[in-house]
Order: sequence, then structure tokens, then C-alpha cells
Amino acid sequence: MTEPDGPGGALTVLAPDGVPEVRKGDDLTALLLTALDRNGWTLADGDVVAVTSKVVSKAEGQVREGTRDDVLADETRRVVARRGRTAIVRNRLGLTMAAAGIDASNVDAGCVVLHPLDPDGSARVLRAALRERTGANVGVLVTDTAGRAWRDGQTDLAIGAAGVQVLQSFAGREDSYGNSLVVTAPAVADELAGAAELAQGKLAARPFAVVRGRADLVLPPGDDGAGAGLLIRGEGQDFFGYGAREAVVRALKAEPGDQAPFGAPAVAEELAAAIAEVTGATTERVGDGLRVRGVDRRLLGVLTYAHGWQIDAADPHDERDTVTVRPQVF
Amino acid sequence: MTEPDGPGGALTVLAPDGVPEVRKGDDLTALLLTALDRNGWTLADGDVVAVTSKVVSKAEGQVREGTRDDVLADETRRVVARRGRTAIVRNRLGLTMAAAGIDASNVDAGCVVLHPLDPDGSARVLRAALRERTGANVGVLVTDTAGRAWRDGQTDLAIGAAGVQVLQSFAGREDSYGNSLVVTAPAVADELAGAAELAQGKLAARPFAVVRGRADLVLPPGDDGAGAGLLIRGEGQDFFGYGAREAVVRALKAEPGDQAPFGAPAVAEELAAAIAEVTGATTERVGDGLRVRGVDRRLLGVLTYAHGWQIDAADPHDERDTVTVRPQVF
Repeated sequence: MTEPDGPGGALTVLAPDGVPEVRKGDDLTALLLTALDRNGWTLADGDVVAVTSKVVSKAEGQVREGTRDDVLADETRRVVARRGRTAIVRNRLGLTMAAAGIDASNVDAGCVVLHPLDPDGSARVLRAALRERTGANVGVLVTDTAGRAWRDGQTDLAIGAAGVQVLQSFAGREDSYGNSLVVTAPAVADELAGAAELAQGKLAARPFAVVRGRADLVLPPGDDGAGAGLLIRGEGQDFFGYGAREAVVRALKAEPGDQAPFGAPAVAEELAAAIAEVTGATTERVGDGLRVRGVDRRLLGVLTYAHGWQIDAADPHDERDTVTVRPQVF
Repeated sequence: MTEPDGPGGALTVLAPDGVPEVRKGDDLTALLLTALDRNGWTLADGDVVAVTSKVVSKAEGQVREGTRDDVLADETRRVVARRGRTAIVRNRLGLTMAAAGIDASNVDAGCVVLHPLDPDGSARVLRAALRERTGANVGVLVTDTAGRAWRDGQTDLAIGAAGVQVLQSFAGREDSYGNSLVVTAPAVADELAGAAELAQGKLAARPFAVVRGRADLVLPPGDDGAGAGLLIRGEGQDFFGYGAREAVVRALKAEPGDQAPFGAPAVAEELAAAIAEVTGATTERVGDGLRVRGVDRRLLGVLTYAHGWQIDAADPHDERDTVTVRPQVF
């Protein structure tokens, strides 16, 4: 493995050919080291090893006979959007993916590949084995291919990680102009997964890649870090936890007490603005709540649900057309 | 610039140091070539040059005095989600970004950097100049940093492109098992941008990167390709064109004839299912429409809007509580 020696930032990504088809029970560490050895490459401290989740799943026996539809329900925690044959779901790992990330390519016809049961755990096992057999302190990423909101095409992401800082934080840092970088947090593990994909390709049977040049992101031996789950926005925290259409249907059928996974509850001014925008009604602040007069209760129920608020059932001010609404607390 | 010579996929990314602060009117081609030369590197056919949109904007004079809020309205085409001080918008380039992608870091205090007026055009100019001065046929990407739905942190994306195949299509291809890869389309330009970011970093004043190893993605001289706009899902085509909360408010205030940018119109079965789910009412197919009985008209208006349908104003079947709804046609 050659390494650029000039100053500046330099990254090398190598994806060895010659990896045989992976079967249940195969030793991925041995397969990787054999492929690297055959190409004359050696792992070094600070390298990041990327491995596709597909071969991790195959080695772990996460292959099922049947179609995606047969296994979709088991892999789904919540439907995010469904249109025709396309189902985008939040899956059992918390990942939002079409068909839950169930993979019907590069597998025997009539079979599908599920995600590993615990991709961070798979990454930890591989990292420890590589350390034991080579002495090198490397990071490991388990990668998968996913579509995105707003942009066509797919990029590879990290769905498992061990010994890699997955999110680089600049909180408290300043740029050279003295501007605060408080919200800048590059998802470096996803960028590393994408770089690995560029060297692996989709058709070349290269499930492994070694990325050299960002040793600063590799954690010390014995520290596996937070894992790739750190990159997943928490359930209920996302502005885009439902498709736009599905959000409307969900809000229209909300029952009192239901909690909307539409992001943190709105501040009072935001709900007041929405009520005014939709109904023309003005509202009045009452403690942590709002008094609303003359708004259809069903409509108000939909609006409060969407904002993480609710109609106060025990409203002492309840007159014929006045109700109090409050932020939901769970 | 050294190049790995083993078999397998190999990618090298080099981001030269020593690039001075970029000012309005600066010649980016000269700055890049000087920085490469100082590091002993030479561009070769098939290289992809990535340059941050920030320095393109600075060279083009797209810097404004003021705050993000001062220029946000001009850069915004449509608000996608707004919570507190966070505004995620679809901007004038069609990109969905927090604060429209207006950048307040690495710029003089009291100033902000807008996107280039035409990032694809900027990339074309740079590509042509590099070809003229070096003879090398390279691709050029203009990159920026953006957050994502569902995942924390940001990754770099291609917002401008010249001479690069931005989306790799496998339509019509099969994997080695004979499975069709019809929907697989790696957004390679975004992965290249992310790989460039890993070599550039956020604090090191390395606005350029050269990616070597995917010459297959670089188009012949004279063919600048479709540009990075190809990666942007069309307005109205996205399932996530509004935040979940904002979608509800938008639907509740829809007027007859408004078109929802919530994705393609639903098929009749999907709307019928949503009506049943929300109201319990059954529907009947009538031509390309649905007859609906006993559903509140306002509620039906919200549901049809969200599904890209509308109440047929000239409904010949209109009885007291029966209406016909049809897909919107524009």
C-alpha cells in the first residue's frame, strides 16, 4: 500500500479483489487478511476497514428465503412513507430505508439479506480479531447503501462502527476568522463509507476497503466508541419522521394522548402562528398553555398533535367554545 | 502524486495546503495549480477536482454584509420546515438546506457567503481552464456541506459538476446472481465530495482536493454532462418536501386547486385507504375518480390535497352528502 507523502490532506482507499463468495460461518477477518496479503497490502495503525453489511450478514446467517415483502414486517418498526410498491420505514436498527434495507441483490435468487442483528457488535468483533491477528489498531465500519430525502441516487453509510469517531464535533472550536463552529459536525463515518464504495463499486465483488489517512478518527485500543447508532437521529426528534402525505393522515387520525414523532414540541408562539394561519383565530397565553376560542375541536386536535401539544382535558376554563391547549409531557 | 498500483479498486484523494485566502476576482485555476505544483503534484486525465463552493463564491463576489437572516428570503424558494431559529428551505438552486446553505463560517465577521449563482457553470469554467492550462481532461465538482433527514451530522455534497457522471446508473445491469439492479444508482458525485471533505477537513484551509482512481466517471473533453442538478429530486416529486409538522399545516390551509408538493398523485386505492383509515367511510370507484359519501367536506379537502387529488367542483353526482374526487391534473 503506497501512501502519498506530500503535505496537505491525503486519503487512500484500497478495495482488494479476489474475495470469494461469503457463506454462513465464514471468518471475515481471514478473508480480509488473505485478500490484502494477495495484493501485497498490510494493515497499519490508524487505518479504517470498511466492510459491506451484506457480507457481514451472509457470514452471520442473516439470509432468508422469500421476498422482501415476506420479511418486511419483521424488520420494520414504523412506516415512514408508503407509495405503491415503495415502503420507506424506520427499521429495527433505527435506520430509515426503503424496504427496511432488506437486500435482494448479490444473493441467491429467491433469497434476501437482512441487516446484521447488531452491526456495532459485528464491527467490534472484527476490530478485535484484526488487532489480535495483525497487531494493528484499526477502526471498523459496517456499511450499507441508502437513498436520501431531497436527492436522487444512493450513497453508502456507516450502519456499524467500532473504534471510529463517527461524528466529528467542532463544538467550542472557531474558524480562522473567529466564527463559532458550534453546529458543524461532519458525519465522517458516512463519508468514509462513501469513499469506500467508490473503491469497491457495486459489481466487482469487493466487499472490503481500507481507508488510510484519517488516523485521527481511529480511537485507542480498547475504546470502541459510541458506534454508528450515534448517527441516527432519535425517534421523535426528526422533522422528517413521516413523509409529508403520511404526516397528514397520521395527524388526522390522532387520538387524544397520541404523541407525534414530528420533532420536539413547538414553542407556544409557533402553535399560535399555525392556529392563526389555518383558522384566523387569535390565542392568549395562559401559563405554559394557550387559550383558544372558536376553533373546531377536531381541527384543533390535529393542529395540537402536529405541534406536540394537546387539548387540556381538565381545562378549568372550558366554556362552550374556549379550550386550553398545552405542550405534551410524557 | 503517488498512485496505488495493486489490483482492486484504488482511490487517492489529495488536498494541498498552502492555498491563500480567496478574494473576489481571484483566479481559482491559478490558485489550484500553484498549490498542486508546490506539493509536487500534477493533474492527470481522469482526475476529479473538488472545490468548495465557499471559495467559488468568494472568487465570484457572492459575499454579502449582514447576517443569514438578512439574505435568507432572497435565497429561499420555499420553506420546508421551520422550528425556532432553524429554517430548512428549498433554495434558489433547488437544494434543501438549513438556512438555504448561506454560510457564516470562514468569512469576515459580519459577512455571509451565498452559493455561486450557477455552480454547474462555475465548474464548467474551471474545467475548461484546467484543460487549457494543463492539457488534462479532468472532471470538476463544486462541493458544499449539508445536513440530512434522519441522520445527525453533515456530509459534503456536489452542488456543481462539469465533466463528471454524477449518478451512476445500473439500469439494465445484473449482479453476478442474475438479479436486476434497476433501482441501484450510486450518487457518486456526492460520495466524491465526501471523500474530498475527508482530505480537506474543516479548519485546514484546503479548499481544493484531487480525487484519482475513478476515471470511468470523467466524461470526454467537450462533454460537461448534466451537471449536479441531476441529483436534485424535482420539486413536487419528493415524499419529504415538507417537514411532517409543516405538511399538516400546509394541508389544513389548502384551498381548492392548490397543488401539494408531496410526491406524485396517489393511486385511487391509496386515497380510498386513507379515507377509510381516517373517517371509516367506504368509497366507490367511478372512472378515474372516487365517490365518497358522508365525509365532512373540509376533511375531505385536506385528504385529497395531501394525496394530489381534489374534490370535483362540477360533480354531476353531487347529492347532499356525496362528492366525487379526482386526481389533480396540471
